[in-house]
Amino acid sequence: MESVTIPEIPPSPVQDSETLKKAFQGWGTDEKALIRILGKRNASQRKMIAQTYQQIYNQSLFDSLRSELSGHFLKAILLWTNDPPERDARLINDALKAKKKGVKDLHVIVEVACASSPHHLMAVRKAYCSLFDCSVEEDIASNIQLPLRKILVRLVSSYRYDKEVVDMTVAKLEATHLHESIKNKELDHNHIVWILGTRNLFQLRATFACYKQEYSSTIHQDILKCGKGDLQDLLRIAILCIECPEKHFAEVIRASVYGLGTDEDLLTRAIVTRAEVDMVKINEEHNKMYNESVEDAVIGDTSGHYKDFLLTLLGKQI
Amino acid sequence: MESVTIPEIPPSPVQDSETLKKAFQGWGTDEKALIRILGKRNASQRKMIAQTYQQIYNQSLFDSLRSELSGHFLKAILLWTNDPPERDARLINDALKAKKKGVKDLHVIVEVACASSPHHLMAVRKAYCSLFDCSVEEDIASNIQLPLRKILVRLVSSYRYDKEVVDMTVAKLEATHLHESIKNKELDHNHIVWILGTRNLFQLRATFACYKQEYSSTIHQDILKCGKGDLQDLLRIAILCIECPEKHFAEVIRASVYGLGTDEDLLTRAIVTRAEVDMVKINEEHNKMYNESVEDAVIGDTSGHYKDFLLTLLGKQI
Repeated sequence: MESVTIPEIPPSPVQDSETLKKAFQGWGTDEKALIRILGKRNASQRKMIAQTYQQIYNQSLFDSLRSELSGHFLKAILLWTNDPPERDARLINDALKAKKKGVKDLHVIVEVACASSPHHLMAVRKAYCSLFDCSVEEDIASNIQLPLRKILVRLVSSYRYDKEVVDMTVAKLEATHLHESIKNKELDHNHIVWILGTRNLFQLRATFACYKQEYSSTIHQDILKCGKGDLQDLLRIAILCIECPEKHFAEVIRASVYGLGTDEDLLTRAIVTRAEVDMVKINEEHNKMYNESVEDAVIGDTSGHYKDFLLTLLGKQI
Repeated sequence: MESVTIPEIPPSPVQDSETLKKAFQGWGTDEKALIRILGKRNASQRKMIAQTYQQIYNQSLFDSLRSELSGHFLKAILLWTNDPPERDARLINDALKAKKKGVKDLHVIVEVACASSPHHLMAVRKAYCSLFDCSVEEDIASNIQLPLRKILVRLVSSYRYDKEVVDMTVAKLEATHLHESIKNKELDHNHIVWILGTRNLFQLRATFACYKQEYSSTIHQDILKCGKGDLQDLLRIAILCIECPEKHFAEVIRASVYGLGTDEDLLTRAIVTRAEVDMVKINEEHNKMYNESVEDAVIGDTSGHYKDFLLTLLGKQI
């Protein structure tokens, strides 16, 4: 369930565009108005607003935002105002083109591939081609080394069946295949790559359950024993995103605020990409795991308009 | 260029449905009327006709065709009347579920993956999920053995960039990679699989040209020297479909009529799936390669309404 709240009868895109334009004019910017509008519209409404704004003022809404805002607030509101497939294509491209990239930068690719609907992933691949003149799998193949390349190319190429059809015989058999490969520390074995990269999510959850039942430890625990560094990390994230995406994003939010300093990019990404998907569940999970709501985590670690914007996406009246 | 001819101002779907209904009624069927209508409408017009027929008569057009026609004519007209993505999904499923399947049965998967637009392949994958409750890559992974599985899963999962962007440095480098793997007779090497399965078609054609320039033999010739049976055959088809699909389909049509007997399923598939795509070019290629038009090949090997239907799809007035 999404956390973002949309007015029952929202203003028309023309009215919204006019209010936005007014917020940009004069001395200073009325950030509260920007948050009140953009933070309370769904993806298709935001798209309509951006198009309408362009038509009326012959100016890009994104350029107006860029010229008036700055810092983490700007980054967050730009990401949010982007059409979701385009937004995710850009996030993936940033990750692939990062100069000094660690495996953590690649998590976003796994998130888009394993914690989105097949339809959304397809739309992201389409947007990627339009924006960057090549396919996402092509860019992964030429920017990422083996063995990560193998699993990432497969995951982004999937178009999983999206209804609940589970074959328990297959689940048992494939749990055995997974266990065999993990036992041999072959985390890039074809079995692992194909099972995780082609099966529907319900089938995979059944396979993970069989794994636990049969071998008394979870697939996560066994992967973590392999000592395979980055590959192990990426696989763990993939399995978590398949098994329970809200748990993964609760972990991401926690990691972004935990300890000294805040990783605002990480926090923004988690909230912006999931506010319209499953933020209510992520919040429940975060509460359960860390005894703190996502809202309180945001309040504790951010400030100003950036804080207000994130809280708005979390459904709080500010 | 397509061979099928559409009237400039075609009758409405309602008029077409009424004419079809009349053709089914009374003593015997008016096959010529069926051919005249369905054989001269494009995919979206056929879809509209099938929907309209269903609405008016509360009966499926496909069922009506099935109850009135038979043999190769029925098979061909059903395949043609199907929506193209659904048609190709069914062809792939038939290939995967064939009891005694040889590598030739799998050619259709390569054709759909390598000789269609990325958009069409995406639509086929979507249709496959709707029709068969699992993804096409899932079915390939569980029905086809290695090493064919590896190349087929990759090819059907591609979403290639579809504009002409070629990087000659990449083409030269990847020609070397391909040559290296082929020289070592490793036809399922990751390099081959990823290059063929992710790059855009223009880039790949440049790579094949570099290959020829650098090594004085074509990639086809070198693959054929590997002695790798089915894998060699499948790769050759993939490269041909990427390099010059019209040549591949000219070969298919030739194979279907050459010698004693006719492989009607093969002939039907080639003409039905390409009549709206590139049949004019296929005909030119067929003429060049075998000194005979596709039309003459059809006339020489088929008869009756089946012949008339295929000739109509080839653009001939019958």
